[in-house]
Amino acid sequence: MSIAVINLAEKFGKIKELHSYKLVARMNDYHFKLVKMKREFIWHSHPETDEVFMIIDGNMQIALREETLYLKRGEMVVIPKGIEHKPSSSEECKILLIEPVGTINTGSAGGDLTDTEIEWI
Amino acid sequence: MSIAVINLAEKFGKIKELHSYKLVARMNDYHFKLVKMKREFIWHSHPETDEVFMIIDGNMQIALREETLYLKRGEMVVIPKGIEHKPSSSEECKILLIEPVGTINTGSAGGDLTDTEIEWI
Repeated sequence: MSIAVINLAEKFGKIKELHSYKLVARMNDYHFKLVKMKREFIWHSHPETDEVFMIIDGNMQIALREETLYLKRGEMVVIPKGIEHKPSSSEECKILLIEPVGTINTGSAGGDLTDTEIEWI
Repeated sequence: MSIAVINLAEKFGKIKELHSYKLVARMNDYHFKLVKMKREFIWHSHPETDEVFMIIDGNMQIALREETLYLKRGEMVVIPKGIEHKPSSSEECKILLIEPVGTINTGSAGGDLTDTEIEWI
């Protein structure tokens, strides 16, 4: 059995497209996903789970209904389950997401931005 | 309700002692713990859970029975449940651990290095 050391910068180097979620690790029933984001996402929530955003490089913001969170490299946040949020980034931001296997990026909102084909890199 | 942005470097700045685990976040039933390590830890395993090591600064190694993993800043690894491992670092290494609430640092091995009083910072 071989256990892989995961270099996050190297993994991001393999991701050519924006907004394409890639799996890099699994811990029990949780996935670690990378995404390069440069867009305004949609309002959505995950009624069944908390969700972690960790900023590997760049800056992003996460609008909540009553405040806006500003995140930069080396920072993370836990969005509690059921809380509506709208991530956005005006420049490319490299994000590590941690959430249960099967969590959908658009949560219960659905729509065109839903990404259901997530590959391992 | 206020949601905290967690700056990992700032949190590490508040940790004065080596080998004192501190909680910085909870996602569902998982804890995010910081520790500054400079020692050779003991062989142990967690029969009930995988465990994530993410290196925020410095270098460390994790001996397994058949290989040794070398990790540096920006790298992470998932140690599968039940796999014996022995973390060590000759210089101070800043580590983010992700594991289920209640996971004990020494796993099923126990002993003097067991840390059961983990505070939030």
